[in-house]
Amino acid sequence: MDERIAHALVWLDYAAVAVFGATGALAAARRKHDIVTFGFFAAITGVGGGTLRDLLLGAPVFWIDRWGYLAACLTAALVIWLTGLGRGRQRVLLWLDAVGLAAYSVVGAAKALALGAPALPSMVMGVLTACFGGVIRDVLAHEESVLLKREIYVTCAVVGAGLFVILRGFGLPGLPAGLIGAGAAFGVRAGAILWNWTLPGFPGRED
Amino acid sequence: MDERIAHALVWLDYAAVAVFGATGALAAARRKHDIVTFGFFAAITGVGGGTLRDLLLGAPVFWIDRWGYLAACLTAALVIWLTGLGRGRQRVLLWLDAVGLAAYSVVGAAKALALGAPALPSMVMGVLTACFGGVIRDVLAHEESVLLKREIYVTCAVVGAGLFVILRGFGLPGLPAGLIGAGAAFGVRAGAILWNWTLPGFPGRED
Amino acid sequence: MDERIAHALVWLDYAAVAVFGATGALAAARRKHDIVTFGFFAAITGVGGGTLRDLLLGAPVFWIDRWGYLAACLTAALVIWLTGLGRGRQRVLLWLDAVGLAAYSVVGAAKALALGAPALPSMVMGVLTACFGGVIRDVLAHEESVLLKREIYVTCAVVGAGLFVILRGFGLPGLPAGLIGAGAAFGVRAGAILWNWTLPGFPGRED
Repeated sequence: MDERIAHALVWLDYAAVAVFGATGALAAARRKHDIVTFGFFAAITGVGGGTLRDLLLGAPVFWIDRWGYLAACLTAALVIWLTGLGRGRQRVLLWLDAVGLAAYSVVGAAKALALGAPALPSMVMGVLTACFGGVIRDVLAHEESVLLKREIYVTCAVVGAGLFVILRGFGLPGLPAGLIGAGAAFGVRAGAILWNWTLPGFPGRED
Repeated sequence: MDERIAHALVWLDYAAVAVFGATGALAAARRKHDIVTFGFFAAITGVGGGTLRDLLLGAPVFWIDRWGYLAACLTAALVIWLTGLGRGRQRVLLWLDAVGLAAYSVVGAAKALALGAPALPSMVMGVLTACFGGVIRDVLAHEESVLLKREIYVTCAVVGAGLFVILRGFGLPGLPAGLIGAGAAFGVRAGAILWNWTLPGFPGRED
Repeated sequence: MDERIAHALVWLDYAAVAVFGATGALAAARRKHDIVTFGFFAAITGVGGGTLRDLLLGAPVFWIDRWGYLAACLTAALVIWLTGLGRGRQRVLLWLDAVGLAAYSVVGAAKALALGAPALPSMVMGVLTACFGGVIRDVLAHEESVLLKREIYVTCAVVGAGLFVILRGFGLPGLPAGLIGAGAAFGVRAGAILWNWTLPGFPGRED
């Protein structure tokens, strides 16, 4: 791969972890928590999804050997603590989170494929990487998890990871497949943010 | 082991994962979720307990290399989405879940013993394998977990895994020990379903 | 290391697991659960933090090969079941839990450093080891987790693990660094218990 692209990907990786971390700190801010709790939520949200991916794949957990990931989360927590978070900046964070979600759905699936997992488990791995940090955040914060809202969120990760895995299966190289997958995931998320897209709920009756 | 028995066990394994997955989809149905959430809950409930077992034992996670397990969960989610779930079928599912619970308490303990774990941790592994998928489902669905109900559920897994491990310790071969353990677990669960068996609660006062 | 100190540390380890386990059984007692649920909560609270640490570090999970840890948890559950838990004894348990918290923040960080992790991830590992059993207990018991209370708890683990890692970085041997770290952690926790110390909450407004 082009040296500069590889370099950009590493930065994107840190940026995505920091953005996810910031959403964790935001959850702490909503409840007026102290700085330690800010850091805890930022760390667990920022690295949670990738941690689960690495555990499931039997790979070394990515933030243990490179402390920069935790530092990125704690910095994000500190920034939110110091600057507060006005409504405008929350909006920015929402969009950055969409970028992270899109990027991570592809990154997670790519890592699983690279380690030899079949297509379907690799897709699931992409979805978990992108979404699980937020799920842990919501469970620990005692908030209704993103899983339980009708908002389209997990679906974007399914689209991104699924498209990437399918295009790779048809022989497309990693970079275009990744860009298309992440682009589609971001597009769906953008539609959900801007126009409140939702999928139809279960039509049946359960009794 | 007899070839046909080994074959039957593999099918039982997939069937148990699918049934657990269906109970996850059912949790999604109760809240009128969309199809993606159905799939997410089915997958996490279906493979959750076995995933934890494999992580704890340091074994490769069972569904990564064989995509059929995830496919079984997603199929179960689709079936429930398409057919709805009348009260009669929920009853069927309750009984199938009891079969899965009984089978998995033995399967989990057997895998732990095979990997060289001592008796007590192997029992615990059987209990976790059988119950943890449902526990994760309830935590993520923001429902009161099966742990917190007075209903006998975890106890069945304790009976199944415990009996299996003890009988193996006395030198009984795996197949009869497994059948006795799973049979006893199923029997206890059947009693709980049919006659609302419960164990006595903590008699003391905590203040 | 002195033979007797090594021996004392092993006992401290079992004692800490038993005390954490007892706090799990206490959560079960508050809701009048049955004996099986007592055991489940005791086990998951007692070994939960160390389990997460070992999984993240890629080390064999500590209680799989040595069944004494689970036995310590189950014994703690049984003791609380049989003796009940008056207000006086709850107070004792609170202080023992503070000792366990202090000890475990150092133990977790030391294990991570010994396995070659950098300073920051090792600190985080100490915090997770000390706190995560309690976090899982609260999530499964559907109670407000210790993370969400204003009470100083996680902070003590941050102090203990942080001080230990920093002192080790300055070349202090493990034993004095551990004693200072654990002592400071215990001191902070004691202040929180006796005088309701809290950290200032997030001063900003989030809208």
